[in-house]
Amino acid sequence: MNVIIIGGVAAGPKAASRINRLCADAEVTLIEKGELLSYAGCGLPYYISGLVKDSKELMSTPVGTVRDSAFFRNVKKANVLNQTEAVAIDRANKTVTVKNRSGEEQVLPYDKLVLATGAESSVPPIPGVGLKNIFNLKDIHDADAIKATLAERKAINAVIVGGGLIGVEVAEAFSEMGCRITVVEFLPQILGMMDPEMAALVEKHFEAKGVKIQTSTRVTAFTGDGRVEKVITDRGEFPADLVLLAVGVRPAAKLAQDAGLTIGPTRAIAVNEQMQTSDPDIYAVGDCAEKKNLLTGKPAYVPLGSTANKEGRVAANAICGVKDSFPGILGSAICKVFDYSVARTGLSEKDAREAGCDVVTCLAPAPDKPHFMPSSKPLFLKLIADRKTRKLLGAQATGPGNADRRIDIAAMALTAGMTVDQLANADLTYAPPFSPAVDNLITAANILRNKIDGLMEGVTPAEVLAMREQGKEFTLLDVRSPAELEQMRIEGTVNIPLGALRKRLNEIDRNRPVIAFCKISLRGYEAALIIKQAGFTDVKVMDGGILMWPGPLTRG
Amino acid sequence: MNVIIIGGVAAGPKAASRINRLCADAEVTLIEKGELLSYAGCGLPYYISGLVKDSKELMSTPVGTVRDSAFFRNVKKANVLNQTEAVAIDRANKTVTVKNRSGEEQVLPYDKLVLATGAESSVPPIPGVGLKNIFNLKDIHDADAIKATLAERKAINAVIVGGGLIGVEVAEAFSEMGCRITVVEFLPQILGMMDPEMAALVEKHFEAKGVKIQTSTRVTAFTGDGRVEKVITDRGEFPADLVLLAVGVRPAAKLAQDAGLTIGPTRAIAVNEQMQTSDPDIYAVGDCAEKKNLLTGKPAYVPLGSTANKEGRVAANAICGVKDSFPGILGSAICKVFDYSVARTGLSEKDAREAGCDVVTCLAPAPDKPHFMPSSKPLFLKLIADRKTRKLLGAQATGPGNADRRIDIAAMALTAGMTVDQLANADLTYAPPFSPAVDNLITAANILRNKIDGLMEGVTPAEVLAMREQGKEFTLLDVRSPAELEQMRIEGTVNIPLGALRKRLNEIDRNRPVIAFCKISLRGYEAALIIKQAGFTDVKVMDGGILMWPGPLTRG
Repeated sequence: MNVIIIGGVAAGPKAASRINRLCADAEVTLIEKGELLSYAGCGLPYYISGLVKDSKELMSTPVGTVRDSAFFRNVKKANVLNQTEAVAIDRANKTVTVKNRSGEEQVLPYDKLVLATGAESSVPPIPGVGLKNIFNLKDIHDADAIKATLAERKAINAVIVGGGLIGVEVAEAFSEMGCRITVVEFLPQILGMMDPEMAALVEKHFEAKGVKIQTSTRVTAFTGDGRVEKVITDRGEFPADLVLLAVGVRPAAKLAQDAGLTIGPTRAIAVNEQMQTSDPDIYAVGDCAEKKNLLTGKPAYVPLGSTANKEGRVAANAICGVKDSFPGILGSAICKVFDYSVARTGLSEKDAREAGCDVVTCLAPAPDKPHFMPSSKPLFLKLIADRKTRKLLGAQATGPGNADRRIDIAAMALTAGMTVDQLANADLTYAPPFSPAVDNLITAANILRNKIDGLMEGVTPAEVLAMREQGKEFTLLDVRSPAELEQMRIEGTVNIPLGALRKRLNEIDRNRPVIAFCKISLRGYEAALIIKQAGFTDVKVMDGGILMWPGPLTRG
Repeated sequence: MNVIIIGGVAAGPKAASRINRLCADAEVTLIEKGELLSYAGCGLPYYISGLVKDSKELMSTPVGTVRDSAFFRNVKKANVLNQTEAVAIDRANKTVTVKNRSGEEQVLPYDKLVLATGAESSVPPIPGVGLKNIFNLKDIHDADAIKATLAERKAINAVIVGGGLIGVEVAEAFSEMGCRITVVEFLPQILGMMDPEMAALVEKHFEAKGVKIQTSTRVTAFTGDGRVEKVITDRGEFPADLVLLAVGVRPAAKLAQDAGLTIGPTRAIAVNEQMQTSDPDIYAVGDCAEKKNLLTGKPAYVPLGSTANKEGRVAANAICGVKDSFPGILGSAICKVFDYSVARTGLSEKDAREAGCDVVTCLAPAPDKPHFMPSSKPLFLKLIADRKTRKLLGAQATGPGNADRRIDIAAMALTAGMTVDQLANADLTYAPPFSPAVDNLITAANILRNKIDGLMEGVTPAEVLAMREQGKEFTLLDVRSPAELEQMRIEGTVNIPLGALRKRLNEIDRNRPVIAFCKISLRGYEAALIIKQAGFTDVKVMDGGILMWPGPLTRG
């Protein structure tokens, strides 16, 4: 059996290795346009920052063997044609035409073909985009060019166009190299994978680290004499010695499209659960292949190395007759932004509303470990659920606390279609160095249960701010202690510490709606219950408390 | 409605708070034998080590309010009788007789009664156990007494009797206080919650930190002049200025038993999923209540603060007519041992065999992040699954790498009854600062799939060692590189690096079984496949590679 695999970065080598493990008699040929094989593209920001010292580390096995052509030949028994481009697929005759670096063409026959052509960085058609020192970050060559530019001089002005995953990871890397950084984002927030209030926390953290975040801003031109000097936007000009374009990637599906394979609505190659394209002898895996969202059942496009590896394995199994399927993705993603983790899985609040769910959300900021442990750090958690089915729909977390564990637990709950009730009773590990006795995720699930069961009515801090700006009349009740008020407060609140509330109910206007809060609104919730028990009717809790307040804060 | 709650540490206060939130007209009385309420008992080892500076922190809310009687009265609207012991329950008349510290008795009527009497430390009936400086660690008073003893002089010889969770946590605390420590354990391994090869890794880590681990050792007496000086065992004597008894806890179920409530096979109070005892007006929650193992459906006893909180909420809901149930536990547990985390969930290999499962296991030691990230640390992972159903049964992890996330993900997979196939395709978050592109757990799940599908036959390092000791003839094939061999090797292996294996197959005896391995046995697996493809028939892989080898290693 002749198997040709086009693409040698992640999913392709995975499929090649697995096929050789499963089928002793398969002849596997791996075709790679570039020079390098099987490198960890996700590690590039850490190579730029110097955390990864040598680019070889990104191409090595954990014990230091470089995964080059010889490695694939000797270990994986795969024939490798690198610096070789696949230029056409002839499905009728089952051949692939390839062109090597000398321009020589060759026609290779296949029984099974695997497309692992990856993704391409989008280059926006902006005047001046061809100037020197404007980069993409696609491979090690790009990273080396960026590193060389950074090395030229100190205190570089760097502009990153696009505040997605790559943009924010590189912003941190640039910052560690001593750059003055501006991230220019066309949308009203960075990290579109996160809900706005969660992204706002990350933006605040970036600003605290000296990175300028310029949202709702469109780049209109790059100017400079040979090399870029300025980024011109509809909101002003930014000096730039270096520009990173990180406006997104798109599936490299042209070869497939030219061959007449079905392309999905996400512009990626349409596949079934065996990673088969519309031609049963052709498979597509990794960043060129369309995914299915497990929760909506709809096509999705989230290119990630983790998914690529799974898909490569499934395609190899299918080719070798081993039963397997790749069910789909949840859109789980994570990145590090200085001291913050930023993670999400499942549907965002907006996704969930668009999918027609009866959405209920909660914001639960809390220490990620018992407050008495010195290693305890704040974690801002948001859960999204369906009121009718009580099922979890999505989870997002950020902050210095441990986000990855909570989001991965939520991802498993989503995979299993669990309700918030099931999540709240999950037997998670517990010891003080790791988590509070009631884990943040379980607290958040319980808040959702209280909301669904009508014990608690929430209102988001953004909604409260809007109500104030609209001049609506209501009592915003802060039940924190005087010492906490000293540290930060929202102007114009009524302040009664929770412990004194039962005795001081007469200080609250019975004719106005009441919105209670505290630091994180757990006491706010208790306050709301006390007030309701005292006969007040319109009582809500401000989700997430003052820690999630998007408006101005004062001291003292 | 009169509700009496007996026990004020974890589950009791939780139930009290929740009942007051749900029922405005409930009269809740919380009865606590000790002085202190609602303290974090799990934090005691960190109070002993000095990580937690003030014992008040263990009794405070996250914003620093001490949870004393006044707090419960004002905030939770619960009447608190502390330093008051419940001495009898009269179920016919629905009363509880309590005795305060002056010895005065009072009879309190209840409509609903919640037993949250907790657990008691076992005190083994060993001669000399009453000597001074022999402690339990049950509450803050014990911790203060231990701290005072430690403060008396430097370089104390401390003996910990019992190598369970509390024993190992305190061993770390004592070590940080400068003690010379011996942990004496009656069983052949410490941490009985872990399988032997996993516990052995922890024992090795303890020894590396200077803590003597003395397993299979029975204490026969404590001797000393007034205060303890020696611990006498069947394997020698150990000098001791301080002894901690940590031989386990048992449910404090006497009050319930005296009242004729059903006691379960674990000696804890039998309850249903609403935490109701055999008397429908009496509930039991927390460490005094029996649990159900979610996987076997059988009674279990794992006393943990995390479970206590969940049970307290469920009992409160049941009492207030809110539909809820506590389905059971997985036996999830975690502890920190110096730089190692030790975590587990589900069935151990022994449990699984006893439950009649067709057990398949894997050992997967690997870096917890991509090897090129400087923050990457080794993690030793073991999974247990059922060959027939393909369901995950249990997971265990230890090492300096991130264990808690993997074990909690596995706990969710167990909760959902997932197969290893589902686990292997789970959409977990991925970025290099957090995990490898193929997470350790997914790699391990794939190893199990390979084993179940007959692609790989594993043999544990302990089995290999036993085969050698029995003089069995087989080739132990090490496919690591010469540089790796330099660092450590097993004597008497055949050494052919994986990359050269296809060319050097003639160096392997075709008439003997072959067991292949490498550092972690991923290359060992590839080697086994290459050898099988070359016509060898009896080929196995040594699970976990040289990193899991329990026998002697040599260098160079």
